[in-house]
Amino acid sequence: MSTQPARGTRDFLPDDVRRREHVVRVVRDVYERYGFEPLETPAFENIEILLGKYGDEGNKLIFKILRRGEHEVTGEADLALRYDLTVPLARVVAQYQNALPKFFKRYQIQPVWRADRPARGRFREFYQCDIDAVGSTSLVVEAELLGAVSEVLTRLGFGDFRVRLNHRQLLTALLESAGVGAELHGDALVALDKLDKIGQDGVEEEFTRRGIASESATKLVDVLRRTTGESEADPGTLGAEGGHNARMAEELVGFVGAQQAGVAAVQALTTIVNLAEGTPAAGRIRIDPSLARGLSYYTGAIMEIAVPDLAGSLGGGGRYDNLVGMFLGREVPACGFSLGLERIIVVMTERGMFPGTIAGGGVDVMVTLWNEDSRGEAVALAGELRRGGLRVDVYPQPDRLGRQFKYASSRNVPFVTILGDDERARGDVSIKDLRSGDQVSVPRGEAVGYLRTGRQ
Amino acid sequence: MSTQPARGTRDFLPDDVRRREHVVRVVRDVYERYGFEPLETPAFENIEILLGKYGDEGNKLIFKILRRGEHEVTGEADLALRYDLTVPLARVVAQYQNALPKFFKRYQIQPVWRADRPARGRFREFYQCDIDAVGSTSLVVEAELLGAVSEVLTRLGFGDFRVRLNHRQLLTALLESAGVGAELHGDALVALDKLDKIGQDGVEEEFTRRGIASESATKLVDVLRRTTGESEADPGTLGAEGGHNARMAEELVGFVGAQQAGVAAVQALTTIVNLAEGTPAAGRIRIDPSLARGLSYYTGAIMEIAVPDLAGSLGGGGRYDNLVGMFLGREVPACGFSLGLERIIVVMTERGMFPGTIAGGGVDVMVTLWNEDSRGEAVALAGELRRGGLRVDVYPQPDRLGRQFKYASSRNVPFVTILGDDERARGDVSIKDLRSGDQVSVPRGEAVGYLRTGRQ
Repeated sequence: MSTQPARGTRDFLPDDVRRREHVVRVVRDVYERYGFEPLETPAFENIEILLGKYGDEGNKLIFKILRRGEHEVTGEADLALRYDLTVPLARVVAQYQNALPKFFKRYQIQPVWRADRPARGRFREFYQCDIDAVGSTSLVVEAELLGAVSEVLTRLGFGDFRVRLNHRQLLTALLESAGVGAELHGDALVALDKLDKIGQDGVEEEFTRRGIASESATKLVDVLRRTTGESEADPGTLGAEGGHNARMAEELVGFVGAQQAGVAAVQALTTIVNLAEGTPAAGRIRIDPSLARGLSYYTGAIMEIAVPDLAGSLGGGGRYDNLVGMFLGREVPACGFSLGLERIIVVMTERGMFPGTIAGGGVDVMVTLWNEDSRGEAVALAGELRRGGLRVDVYPQPDRLGRQFKYASSRNVPFVTILGDDERARGDVSIKDLRSGDQVSVPRGEAVGYLRTGRQ
Repeated sequence: MSTQPARGTRDFLPDDVRRREHVVRVVRDVYERYGFEPLETPAFENIEILLGKYGDEGNKLIFKILRRGEHEVTGEADLALRYDLTVPLARVVAQYQNALPKFFKRYQIQPVWRADRPARGRFREFYQCDIDAVGSTSLVVEAELLGAVSEVLTRLGFGDFRVRLNHRQLLTALLESAGVGAELHGDALVALDKLDKIGQDGVEEEFTRRGIASESATKLVDVLRRTTGESEADPGTLGAEGGHNARMAEELVGFVGAQQAGVAAVQALTTIVNLAEGTPAAGRIRIDPSLARGLSYYTGAIMEIAVPDLAGSLGGGGRYDNLVGMFLGREVPACGFSLGLERIIVVMTERGMFPGTIAGGGVDVMVTLWNEDSRGEAVALAGELRRGGLRVDVYPQPDRLGRQFKYASSRNVPFVTILGDDERARGDVSIKDLRSGDQVSVPRGEAVGYLRTGRQ
């Protein structure tokens, strides 16, 4: 029988968990500083809650659970595994509408499951880190979201991320101003979404292929050429975005001038950029009319965060005022952002951004066992060291000291203690630094202080 | 459509998550101090990994996932949700045997799913907190486990828990010494397991009903009467267990005298108690020959932790040297303990053991919005306060101040800031304590200090 984890899933051994925890701890801490509160929902939902919410393709990718008991033989499914964190949020907003605050700001960090074909960096079980602010249409919400996400990435050590910012209404106005009929907007956005992959010429071809008049296609690609791409200043320089954004806003208003909703959208983007000046997103946001984001449910601002050497994004989000109210039958304004935990971990691993203490860093000191009779004293010594805040392992059975040292070294434990007959007679304990080989003898009461200093 | 969570599962709103996190944080921190390292496994396993591992009853309670794609219509299941944390551990030990240390000490805190009939305190999705030490038969392992679990409960504020300690070989020896044939041992243990519920007389009846000779039944109940129950000292007095354990050991050796394995088991129990003297389990352990624990896979010490006012236990465990090697085809010694997170939370809630700061305690201060024009300054002020370590919410849209205060109060936020025209002219910020109604004006640079003091 194979003992591998199921296809597309992973076991997380101690170093893996520590890396993931390191990221999750920062995410959680930052989100709480921004006033978001934690929410957790069950791994599975009644199947009708999920079916029909993710399109035909999504429906096929939902993991479905067999009805139990005598019904099991019917092959009928009555439950399904969480597919994202947004539909459960909508269910929670409907179910607890009277208990939740008027402005409900929640974060949720939980796994979701999709029966996608596994590929490099694509798993069937993966974590999402979502923040959503429900209940207000104010642009303060967008600015605060961008601030929170930017602070997460900054605290994790990302120095080079950029925020791309666009607006659904601006996209619509651009298309209309270019003479693309409403019935072709969906197609146009699908084509636009490929800009990163196929370039501006490719997008122009794709526009034409999808039935957009070549005149419109040329107009669109032309305005994109003028309003996207690197700013003239060194793209690596923070703060260069300010002038760029002002020029883009001017260009875009010029292009969509006749479309009132388009002008309002540009003004909204400018407001978001200005409000975010007081946040860690300052200087990182670039108004980018080529950002389309696949999901059709966005109604206002859309945003995405990327770093230069990663195809795709570290996360994205936007305003979606029609979705959270789906179970309530009325509109509930909402704006959210989803950070891709798996991608963040991939990039941090490739760039060596995790603290060195994570690898094999589970134990500060190992208490060796001198002989059978001194087992109790070893356990007691471990207790003293633990009370001093140290993470302490005890070698469980008598063994040659050299072997015990070797075992500790193989686990990256920096120190071992030795409590031999001489040490016990003197009330001392010997401490060996396995990295340098140095060994000292200290009074037992000073062992914690010595080790805490040495740990750094 | 119902928006309730699926039957037997729960949504955790912010206060719920904070309570759970409070417990999990302590569990994790203590387990790490004891040298246990984190492991996480996927929510589902290939179905053949789980089937047949939990008996006929267990097989029925496993949630099974439909094969995807064209196979979905066949009703065939190829995956199943995690049912406990022990079988995944066994799989991990087999899969990564060369990468794992010789003594693998792991903790795992993850949900499991069982299609049990939901009842008060029994859910279909619930968390287990397991620690297991794999690779050594040394009794140091048992002592360290009991130390770790006792430290968790102590740190959570449980002052009155007791550890019941027994040994599978002692149970066997007791049954043999009473003249119960090996073929009836299983029945006898099932009966014994009901002692808590039906009392000693009930157990004696049950013994007879299950075909155990009345002479044997009487002998058994007699030795249990002499070796269980309260010690003569005040049962509430810590440390009273020492003399009790010594007397019990003597009684038990007297009873099983002819059974070498039984005598060895009593000696092992005494050793565990002595080794645990240097741990937070000191004075809490009582040797209790009536502890049976249902699971048939234990091979050595068995243990359980209970508090007086809770029927059932807060957790239990023991040594099981035949199970972790199931996928390797060889014996791998192991000893583990599972804390019941849900039960711990139930008792802590009933007893009011959670810090008062948890309820509605997600936000330290809310920045009010003076008017549309000062939105940017409000966001910037929030940023300053966050950099000072505070958890800060911003009221997202202009509104009457009284309404903003009321909103903050309803969410238990202790402070609000006001940045009106006067304050801004002076470079000040007004801070209102919503609990007392007091309001002060402080220079903006001193706001963090003021609020951090006031938060305590």
